[in-house]
Amino acid sequence: MNPVLSDLQRSDLNHVWHPCSQMKDYEEFPPIVIKSGKGIYLYDENGKEYIDAVSSWWVNLFGHANERINTALANQASQLEHVIFANFTHKPAVLLAEKLAEITPEGLTKVFFADNGSSAIEIALKMSFQYHIQNNKPNKKRFLALTDAYHGETLGALSLGGVGLYNEIFQPLLLNTVRAQGPDCFRCPFNEEPSSCSTPCISFIEEKLIQHHEELAAVIVEPLIQAAAGMKMYPPGYLNKLKQLCLQYDIHLIADEVAVGFGRTGTMFACEQAGITPDFMCLSKGLTGGYLPLSAVMTTDDVYNAFYDEYETMKAFFHSHSYTGNPLACRVALEVLRIFEDEPYIEEIQKKGAYMQELASKVFNHQPYIGEYRQTGLVGAIELVKDKATKEPFPSGERIGYKIYRIALEKGLLLRPLGNVLYFMPPYVISKEEIKRMIHITNEAIQQFFKNSQADSVMQEV
Amino acid sequence: MNPVLSDLQRSDLNHVWHPCSQMKDYEEFPPIVIKSGKGIYLYDENGKEYIDAVSSWWVNLFGHANERINTALANQASQLEHVIFANFTHKPAVLLAEKLAEITPEGLTKVFFADNGSSAIEIALKMSFQYHIQNNKPNKKRFLALTDAYHGETLGALSLGGVGLYNEIFQPLLLNTVRAQGPDCFRCPFNEEPSSCSTPCISFIEEKLIQHHEELAAVIVEPLIQAAAGMKMYPPGYLNKLKQLCLQYDIHLIADEVAVGFGRTGTMFACEQAGITPDFMCLSKGLTGGYLPLSAVMTTDDVYNAFYDEYETMKAFFHSHSYTGNPLACRVALEVLRIFEDEPYIEEIQKKGAYMQELASKVFNHQPYIGEYRQTGLVGAIELVKDKATKEPFPSGERIGYKIYRIALEKGLLLRPLGNVLYFMPPYVISKEEIKRMIHITNEAIQQFFKNSQADSVMQEV
Ligand SMILES: Cc1ncc(COP(=O)(O)O)c(C=O)c1O
Ligand SMILES: Cc1ncc(COP(=O)(O)O)c(C=O)c1O
Repeated sequence: MNPVLSDLQRSDLNHVWHPCSQMKDYEEFPPIVIKSGKGIYLYDENGKEYIDAVSSWWVNLFGHANERINTALANQASQLEHVIFANFTHKPAVLLAEKLAEITPEGLTKVFFADNGSSAIEIALKMSFQYHIQNNKPNKKRFLALTDAYHGETLGALSLGGVGLYNEIFQPLLLNTVRAQGPDCFRCPFNEEPSSCSTPCISFIEEKLIQHHEELAAVIVEPLIQAAAGMKMYPPGYLNKLKQLCLQYDIHLIADEVAVGFGRTGTMFACEQAGITPDFMCLSKGLTGGYLPLSAVMTTDDVYNAFYDEYETMKAFFHSHSYTGNPLACRVALEVLRIFEDEPYIEEIQKKGAYMQELASKVFNHQPYIGEYRQTGLVGAIELVKDKATKEPFPSGERIGYKIYRIALEKGLLLRPLGNVLYFMPPYVISKEEIKRMIHITNEAIQQFFKNSQADSVMQEV
Repeated sequence: MNPVLSDLQRSDLNHVWHPCSQMKDYEEFPPIVIKSGKGIYLYDENGKEYIDAVSSWWVNLFGHANERINTALANQASQLEHVIFANFTHKPAVLLAEKLAEITPEGLTKVFFADNGSSAIEIALKMSFQYHIQNNKPNKKRFLALTDAYHGETLGALSLGGVGLYNEIFQPLLLNTVRAQGPDCFRCPFNEEPSSCSTPCISFIEEKLIQHHEELAAVIVEPLIQAAAGMKMYPPGYLNKLKQLCLQYDIHLIADEVAVGFGRTGTMFACEQAGITPDFMCLSKGLTGGYLPLSAVMTTDDVYNAFYDEYETMKAFFHSHSYTGNPLACRVALEVLRIFEDEPYIEEIQKKGAYMQELASKVFNHQPYIGEYRQTGLVGAIELVKDKATKEPFPSGERIGYKIYRIALEKGLLLRPLGNVLYFMPPYVISKEEIKRMIHITNEAIQQFFKNSQADSVMQEV
């Protein structure tokens, strides 16, 4: 039976094709029409409140409809909403670039702007490739990425992805990426523990580098958390070894901090925890505090200089997007960085993270269908398993995560899952009280689901 | 001798890598720091005024810092700046999608949102490809594009481009696009006139379709104006024939209206002039009136339905960007469409266009180094040639357009060229008086350049 639809829901279903969705699912579960947001909360057209536990796809940092950011945005709009960014510039872009160079790892001095995470990845790929040509290594035209990696949706970025759901069908259109098995701390093939491990799994990359280094332009990783894969986490030591390997084999390292940048892991950037400087760092999402699409590729003088020459040599990087360096988005991003300067959010993330980890571990770790609760910074993940001993996953067709997500939504919690993984990635303004409620509702939803499904299987047996 | 730099200029050069630029050029010609904008004008940090004759890379429609749009933006920010767009929706996106379906050619009923033009193109490619797989035509995995085409910078979009400057060096990373010779009315191989021509050049595409139709998923074109190629213009009849061919050979037609949509050619969409409905229409740039990065792929029920099925069939389109359907950008775009409803801009464009065409033709067409002045809607282009009789172009290494652009900037006119083509694509709020001034300054800059360069060559001969 179809649910009763509001006018906006009906019109939405007539005209909007939603991202990452089987639209037929919306027949039974129509889109929720959000009317307003405030802090960690979203409100639908009927006034129902939802905790935005996933920061609206990992973008929001300081809460919805943030007044300080709104003021900055309005002021900028009254001055200058946009200007072409070739031969022209403006204060918000310059100050933002200055601050980004200051806060990202030492040596990342130059900023190339774009509009979304995928485009930032494409820019890093193209720059790395062209760099090697201009340094007389034209054979370096492939890229190495990890199993379970996610780097975006445009064909270049999608080629790097290791999650079949997103790119399997598109294989004939994709680059021939060199794939290395990534770290998998939950099902570690070496039976190590993250806290004590010496990252022997780096050998999977090393093998591929030995084999392919002459044709490789760059290696790309999501530092510390393979997010779209289901918040798979691994220790910083892995990144140190990887950086060493890249130096040894003359291969660029691209750090995709689109999801983990700006405090998520408990440090401003995840790379800091390894103390490394990649050749490229891609930033987006939190860059504007969840307000506007904007991305930035940070790179080094070495890379920049390989393109710096007389026009006639045709060494320039001829890449542009119409809205590159958009003043509104830059101004908002600048305000985000100023909030980080003015308020101790990094400390807060660590404190709130510790609280969340303690409570969530207690609540979830002992449960029969939860393989583990893991956490880094203010990202927590619950991995649901069919068999706790063997860590056998639920078949993806059962859509366990999706079903629990729907129960949680009923209860006022937005907890969009990744397959069998439920996760918390709340805005940094969440309070301890709210963390507790978020964990509590999640637990209720999980309990309710497994009670019902046990009841279901009893029913089936009868 | 290097120019004296302001603090912002110095910091810009230290940290910002500008799009589509040889950064070494900036040593001699540092970035102009824009402080504010109003209507068609931009103001730099010294208070100098520039007419934005290129609408800041073809994005601005109703002037800089537009008050009506600013109010809409601020109101939206105070309500809801962003929300995840999978399973969730909001009024600005729904109303925008509704209106887009209403104003685009009949049959384009569904809207998929993204963040920039390049991403919209990638979505159309991926949708077309997956559509054919789901309709049991898995061999349809190539795309046909025209010589001199431009469709963006991410690897999929870049593969379609036919302008070597942007993609030649990246060939090893690109799709193997089927390339057909496009229309070239200025140097017509059939010696036809645009006004009377029967578009015999469609045969170049037809030949390729006969040869490749079984492996082709889609043909992509920029309707009426190949913009980045240098505002190359061609008559609507070409599009009618192309649509027929696509139907005949079971190939999707992708209309890339990123540059020409929203009134630029004198009709809301360029496809209207041919009365055709493509299978995909890609929109961006003017969609937000030059405010914010946003794009939309319009498509048909036929395409949508090919993806609509039970989740388990895995027919869904698993594409997303973090900021898909961003409420701020959607609200701004909605206001842009409301301005078109409330005010007779389409008529204005036609009237102003007629005025511009008459005046510019008079001023430019008789000049020795101008091959032609051409115009469609409110897009006018001056093609500089070395030899008017043979239409021999200036060698690109001479950077004629760039040099004239710099003279015009001195005179307060922003006229960024495309190789040997100078063009006008002003905001629609430009007045007749301002059109006159724009043409006048352009003429002065051209005169000054050729006088100097004649003096230069006299000097060289002496
Ligand atoms: C690690 C990572 N890289 C890249 C992207 C792509 O960014 P966008 O969705 O803005 O294109 C994402 C988005 O989820 C991401 O998580
Ligand atoms: C016809 C056309 N298609 C696509 C694009 C790419 O759009 P974006 O620059 O927003 O990626 C452009 C940009 O100039 C364009 O002119």
